[in-house]
Amino acid sequence: MEAPLPEPEPLKALIESLRRLPGVGVRSARRMAYHLLQHDQPGAEQLSRALSSALRDLRHCARCNGFTEEEICATCSNPKRDPSILCIVETPADQNMIESSHGYRGLYYVLMGRLAPLEGIGPDELRFDRLLKRVDDGLVKEVILATNFTAEGETTAHYLSELLQSRGIAVSRLARGVPAGSELEYVDAGTIAWALMERRST
Amino acid sequence: MEAPLPEPEPLKALIESLRRLPGVGVRSARRMAYHLLQHDQPGAEQLSRALSSALRDLRHCARCNGFTEEEICATCSNPKRDPSILCIVETPADQNMIESSHGYRGLYYVLMGRLAPLEGIGPDELRFDRLLKRVDDGLVKEVILATNFTAEGETTAHYLSELLQSRGIAVSRLARGVPAGSELEYVDAGTIAWALMERRST
Repeated sequence: MEAPLPEPEPLKALIESLRRLPGVGVRSARRMAYHLLQHDQPGAEQLSRALSSALRDLRHCARCNGFTEEEICATCSNPKRDPSILCIVETPADQNMIESSHGYRGLYYVLMGRLAPLEGIGPDELRFDRLLKRVDDGLVKEVILATNFTAEGETTAHYLSELLQSRGIAVSRLARGVPAGSELEYVDAGTIAWALMERRST
Repeated sequence: MEAPLPEPEPLKALIESLRRLPGVGVRSARRMAYHLLQHDQPGAEQLSRALSSALRDLRHCARCNGFTEEEICATCSNPKRDPSILCIVETPADQNMIESSHGYRGLYYVLMGRLAPLEGIGPDELRFDRLLKRVDDGLVKEVILATNFTAEGETTAHYLSELLQSRGIAVSRLARGVPAGSELEYVDAGTIAWALMERRST
């Protein structure tokens, strides 16, 4: 929705900037701008400050590539975690989901993306050289590939699997199957097919 | 989703600030923060700057209460518009929708909200005194109430209608009826009832 009325420049610039957020179209951007300016000016100031401080103070952990203020992030420097297992995830959000399962006490490596040749994202863009250096620390015995079960996530897992196995590292992948609490009637056929193929003896 | 992993302070602050945007929950806020920091740092800088410049440079038009950089906005100072009709809307977004219908050449007044007693928004919060001063400029002959057709918008229209009519101003309301292009089968019964009640002879 292009504004048919003349719009002041700072408002136009704010709407344009909000549109760059993922999942925000022009209507939402407009609504956000009006809301901030009319009903939450302290929120707007806070957001402006938070953005500049995050840009200034955050960097990538030298070990796991996640966001941190320090050289090494709190998770990587936690001595209670098992340094022999490394779980590779696409994003910090995925890392949080795995952590909240309470089923993992090893370390992480965050790719900050996935292979997407069509978008020009290859092994160089994802800095696989840094990942290989991380894996070669002499402590990592097993790498768990926890990229998403999408076409791109699977491609990334496949590529990394070949790369790491050629260096003699044990590589595993998260199990595919029927989600916990599901009724089979409502699970998609592809998932059922995987669950059949990867069935376990009890 | 509370992050189960320790999170650096600037990242936490950024996610909290993004959550204040309307329609943004913690998951979207997290996704936005990761996106800005990892894939669009220029976008983050731009948004931070746009926010502070909008806060610094925008104010309310002395005539229509919309956002402007000047004392009087471009729409209110446009000599081609008819100063005898004033259309009252809730938000600048509503104003844009009316303008894009190309069916209106009068002026506007933007309430920047609607009466919502449960949220503590009454005539004082919406500065109805300013609106009355605006209407009393000696040029306005008719006021069109274009608040939303929601409970709160209707209440606001009803209240304003009594207030303005008691001052001898002609007040009208947008017509209710079947939307253009609709099939009756898919229009809700309330709308049909209104359309019947307000039927026009042809």
